[in-house]
Amino acid sequence: MPITIAHLGPTGTYAEAAAMVYADQLQQRRQTSVTLEPYPSIAKTLQSLAAGNVDYAIVPVENSIEGSVSITLDTLWQLDNLQIQQAIVLPITHALLSHGENLATIRAVYSHPQALAQCQIWLETNLHHPSLIPTSSTTEALRHLDDRTAAAISSQRAAQLYGVPVLACPINDYPDNCTRFWAVSQQASTHGSHTSLAFSLPANLPGALVKALQAFAHLDINLSKIESRPTKRSLGDYLFFIDLEGSLSTPSVQSALQELATCTETLKIFGSYSILTVTALP
Amino acid sequence: MPITIAHLGPTGTYAEAAAMVYADQLQQRRQTSVTLEPYPSIAKTLQSLAAGNVDYAIVPVENSIEGSVSITLDTLWQLDNLQIQQAIVLPITHALLSHGENLATIRAVYSHPQALAQCQIWLETNLHHPSLIPTSSTTEALRHLDDRTAAAISSQRAAQLYGVPVLACPINDYPDNCTRFWAVSQQASTHGSHTSLAFSLPANLPGALVKALQAFAHLDINLSKIESRPTKRSLGDYLFFIDLEGSLSTPSVQSALQELATCTETLKIFGSYSILTVTALP
Repeated sequence: MPITIAHLGPTGTYAEAAAMVYADQLQQRRQTSVTLEPYPSIAKTLQSLAAGNVDYAIVPVENSIEGSVSITLDTLWQLDNLQIQQAIVLPITHALLSHGENLATIRAVYSHPQALAQCQIWLETNLHHPSLIPTSSTTEALRHLDDRTAAAISSQRAAQLYGVPVLACPINDYPDNCTRFWAVSQQASTHGSHTSLAFSLPANLPGALVKALQAFAHLDINLSKIESRPTKRSLGDYLFFIDLEGSLSTPSVQSALQELATCTETLKIFGSYSILTVTALP
Repeated sequence: MPITIAHLGPTGTYAEAAAMVYADQLQQRRQTSVTLEPYPSIAKTLQSLAAGNVDYAIVPVENSIEGSVSITLDTLWQLDNLQIQQAIVLPITHALLSHGENLATIRAVYSHPQALAQCQIWLETNLHHPSLIPTSSTTEALRHLDDRTAAAISSQRAAQLYGVPVLACPINDYPDNCTRFWAVSQQASTHGSHTSLAFSLPANLPGALVKALQAFAHLDINLSKIESRPTKRSLGDYLFFIDLEGSLSTPSVQSALQELATCTETLKIFGSYSILTVTALP
């Protein structure tokens, strides 16, 4: 049976590029064939994995400019038994694709909201007050290019795949633009340089957050990221997503999590994994 | 001279409703007239205040369902000398406005991205695959309603102001939907129940975040919110925005901030303020 990997589609997205990197790794390690399966949304990618329809899902977690991808964190919290196997960091170079003749004729720009946000200064500077229209993915944006006054923000790979000319590249506002993805599956993952988890806290307990974080401070465990998301119950009621440096296989992380469990309401451990940094897009 | 308050416009936005609440407070306290000034974006609202063109700016900070408003945090960090005078929590009840006859004919829904996100389950359930098109504010969305297959998500107050029929209300996915706003000015603010600040950390210093948070733990100061935002320098390099329970006028908060200053790179204090919770929209 080939291994299947779900990712945000259609073909040509950055999530697919991350999935290709991970598929290469799996093929080398397991000597088996791998099939990529595009999905219409990030939430559906993870839901399909939780339902057992695919073996892995590749989802974006955060971008170096725009920050966390909320829908990934919110969906991971809602679903059960999903474990991170690997983090993959991809450089992101956005291009402006259009069948129009030049920048002066562009009136509307389509893309994923994260890509629109990552190019906003360039768009303001180089185009004449275009409408910015969000799509469900960077390649979904290419469906709107029959009109020659429309452009899409997507990758150079997507330009080649769909045969659309590149009007400008790179157009991201910050050159050091990269996105971190997680490869997730239902297998336990207890080894790696980093561990991710999330927790909610008992309501109205003063000092609860600091007490929870002291569980790590006591054991000199470094937190590389902390992110709050609303529980959607009431304003001021949060979930906390934490990335820490250390592995679930070590006694210090195990002790910290035992201490943490005594002061959280719900605690979910998303596993330990290593980070693979890719220097050029596939 | 009348006092001027900048807010996201055009007239009819939730930010304007929060500004009206704050204007009432100012008028009672200072016996002077107050003028509201709409701006085309949240960033421009704060920039106008920093440039001295207005006396106050009212900006959304976080919503109970969708979380933080990143552009508010990012802009506050970039500008200097802005201080929070008051937090205002408003209930948010979204309505679907259209000149169309009924829900079955709606093909496109316009609104601010936060409002679209707060109604996504309702839109999926009650409309037939509409295009969701973001606008710069909930009232900006009303400019697109000449087409009777278009609808906008906005407030019932906006429906009255602009004379657009309400097709459905409420349409937010969670009934307990509210948004916290900050009233910001250039005056020092050192008294109140809560204090907000943000800091960056020295690069690659293990344990830096936990060390910074211990400054509060040592003095039993409760953190009501912690939020990370990218510095936009490189992936994994964050600013941290913190709301704590306590006032800059108390010795314990002053001591904690002195300790914090020794382990941060840049530390910005946004002031102390009280929280006003409004039970019904103006």
